Amino acid sequence: MTQTPVIDCLQFANWSEEIFREMRAGGVHAVHATILYHGDFREMVREIEAFNAWFEALPDLIFHGRTGDDVRRAMAEDKTAIFFGIQNPQPLEDDLDLIEIFETLGLRFMQLTYNNQSLLGSGWQEPRDGGITNFGREVIREMNRTGIMIDMSHAGEKTTREAIELSERPIAVTHANPRFWRDEKRNVSDDIIKALEQSGGMLGFSLYPHHLKGGSACTLQEFCEMAARVAERHGAGMLGIGSDLCQNRTDFWVQWMRDGRWRKVSPLAGEAAKAKFPEPTSWFASNKDFPGIAQGLREVGFSDAEVGGIMGGNWLRFFDQTFTRRP
Amino acid sequence: MTQTPVIDCLQFANWSEEIFREMRAGGVHAVHATILYHGDFREMVREIEAFNAWFEALPDLIFHGRTGDDVRRAMAEDKTAIFFGIQNPQPLEDDLDLIEIFETLGLRFMQLTYNNQSLLGSGWQEPRDGGITNFGREVIREMNRTGIMIDMSHAGEKTTREAIELSERPIAVTHANPRFWRDEKRNVSDDIIKALEQSGGMLGFSLYPHHLKGGSACTLQEFCEMAARVAERHGAGMLGIGSDLCQNRTDFWVQWMRDGRWRKVSPLAGEAAKAKFPEPTSWFASNKDFPGIAQGLREVGFSDAEVGGIMGGNWLRFFDQTFTRRP
Repeated sequence: MTQTPVIDCLQFANWSEEIFREMRAGGVHAVHATILYHGDFREMVREIEAFNAWFEALPDLIFHGRTGDDVRRAMAEDKTAIFFGIQNPQPLEDDLDLIEIFETLGLRFMQLTYNNQSLLGSGWQEPRDGGITNFGREVIREMNRTGIMIDMSHAGEKTTREAIELSERPIAVTHANPRFWRDEKRNVSDDIIKALEQSGGMLGFSLYPHHLKGGSACTLQEFCEMAARVAERHGAGMLGIGSDLCQNRTDFWVQWMRDGRWRKVSPLAGEAAKAKFPEPTSWFASNKDFPGIAQGLREVGFSDAEVGGIMGGNWLRFFDQTFTRRP
Repeated sequence: MTQTPVIDCLQFANWSEEIFREMRAGGVHAVHATILYHGDFREMVREIEAFNAWFEALPDLIFHGRTGDDVRRAMAEDKTAIFFGIQNPQPLEDDLDLIEIFETLGLRFMQLTYNNQSLLGSGWQEPRDGGITNFGREVIREMNRTGIMIDMSHAGEKTTREAIELSERPIAVTHANPRFWRDEKRNVSDDIIKALEQSGGMLGFSLYPHHLKGGSACTLQEFCEMAARVAERHGAGMLGIGSDLCQNRTDFWVQWMRDGRWRKVSPLAGEAAKAKFPEPTSWFASNKDFPGIAQGLREVGFSDAEVGGIMGGNWLRFFDQTFTRRP
């Protein structure tokens, strides 16, 4: 009997019965699912509708997760709770009151920026990072009130630091690795990890090859040794997994994630651009591979309690803290 | 201590703190509030946002009602539960899956048609009543599954009859009076009242002067005698109030309700059209007047139990039956 849950705090799969069954096979109790990259409010709602159809079709496998207790329910009932998130705040338009609507619809994670400038802050790919905007401050306050998790995975350094400072509730970087391990702007600096630690925030390790040292060739041991180094410096209690698993997505989606509708792309450029998903590592290609990660963490010296925390116990604690509306 | 609640199953006020205080003064525990006449999904959501702001601002007076138990909570806490409804299914677009989204957002009533043809059926003002459409059948099934009340107050006769037949759950006409009393197409025929009775449905009496015999000059006694006649024929258990109170709305709204955006209206026509709200009766102009109606019902011979039922107990039973999602 599992004492702590297994939680993956970011996936963007081409959802299917097969994948939901793999979640069960891998013992995954909760997944933060990205439901939208680029799109407006109505398009986001359409994605929720698609998940509702899955929930109605496969009630023995999955259900809509909204709270930490839903993770416990998933553990008790051998199911996977799917938590909704958006990586781009575009569905928010310029309407602060939509935050509470998002919460009512069961959205639990929102990045304040995707790669580019948003109305809230600067993404990591912008040449200039202007930090949190006027509207961004209001949105942080309203996300704090309604209990939606602030996720800064794709934000610029300054924007991320300011979000940590401005937010009354701890925030998360759900899917990134330390730059000291793979020096890539999309990964997080020591300063940010420190700020997360000091504010009670969380870091979810990514398993997306572009975020791994050595890319697709990275070994499980190297990944786990990196985790051990972060734990030595900052403690294991702020660590979790946000795999960034993009299973069964065609390469079209790489280009969509990057270019969306903001950059001109010729309909003939799909082939030419050659944007492709990286090959997965040999040890992480689907939800079935989570037990191997737990084993790898044990082998580099983490205690059972620490492994349980990193595999999901820490996220569960953080869900309990975060997903409550303030009176 | 009230044993049964007071429920008004339709209002479209220019919502204000004053009006919410009048609900408390009148002992009203639940109100079905029309949040939209003409508009798309996003506009409907914006109206929900406006109510959320009221709920946050006046937590001691009002809260968002979703279930029969919320009416009981309102009784226990001396508050008014506001239940959302739309009179026009336009926000549904052609997207069946939005029904569940509506339910999640706390919408509890939807008319299948307003005055005109909708994608679901024919309104009472159409020259031809084509009955329930293909899409309408699907929507009825989905409203039955998710637990949203089907309201046929503004529908054509044939469309109403077919909705009663097709719906697995009893339906309601939330705000209309019998034609035998005021022979107006917007009111309901004996056949429809009989069909509602036989199917376990509900009829909410309207207090809108255009639906009353004698209009604004109608007396409380005449209104209550009409109620007694309906109760004699069909029983008092299917009866409630849906006042259609449009308090503090400027006359602009009469034209908006009638013409929306579907008919050409000159910006100069507002004055010319002279569309006006009727004068309220002397005995019903605000939420404070509900106790008078209860008294009027007693005076025409209804028992205390029957009065309790008509003033809200019957709606509460119907809410309990209706506002539950089917597995």
